[in-house]
Amino acid sequence: MANFIDVRDRVGRSEPKHYKTTLFQSEELMLGLNCLEPGQEQPVHTHAAQDKFYLVLEGSGTFTVGREEGVAGPFTTVWAPRGIEHGVRNTGSGRLVLFMGMAPPPS
Amino acid sequence: MANFIDVRDRVGRSEPKHYKTTLFQSEELMLGLNCLEPGQEQPVHTHAAQDKFYLVLEGSGTFTVGREEGVAGPFTTVWAPRGIEHGVRNTGSGRLVLFMGMAPPPS
Repeated sequence: MANFIDVRDRVGRSEPKHYKTTLFQSEELMLGLNCLEPGQEQPVHTHAAQDKFYLVLEGSGTFTVGREEGVAGPFTTVWAPRGIEHGVRNTGSGRLVLFMGMAPPPS
Repeated sequence: MANFIDVRDRVGRSEPKHYKTTLFQSEELMLGLNCLEPGQEQPVHTHAAQDKFYLVLEGSGTFTVGREEGVAGPFTTVWAPRGIEHGVRNTGSGRLVLFMGMAPPPS
């Protein structure tokens, strides 16, 4: 069914850079998965015009959002508004799987 | 920390209508939880100008999106683009917890 995706079917692994895949996208919203092996990171960066979120599905990581830094595991949502520096590093022992979205999508 | 929420802390119950709460909101995106007890439903409806998604966190439900109908459980994402009828009924035996988002937020 085109509008249903079991995200477990879309988990992946990539070296050296972490794995990213898009689940759904419209003009207003992009949804995807980011999968980080232990030690992989998404370096701190900023989107000038996109609000972004992560929801941890598996594993745990250390997230930075502006001046906040915290370890988050399953069921934690991390919110990174436009213009705010953010990044994540897999500081756990297993794969870190993040459901994420950006509104609007990056151009 | 203002940009981190463990969504398990925000689960709730409401009768007769299901429980809804907002987690984060900007001009571009609203994120929230919908919690449905067994038998509760969000009747089929349409948002003319919002793209919406659900991600099942707990339980299972029967989702309708346009002509598609399917049972979804944890880790399934359901995508309901603007203008497409959608709804969900908790057809499982336990609480159905949905992480959801709309872009842009409803006015």
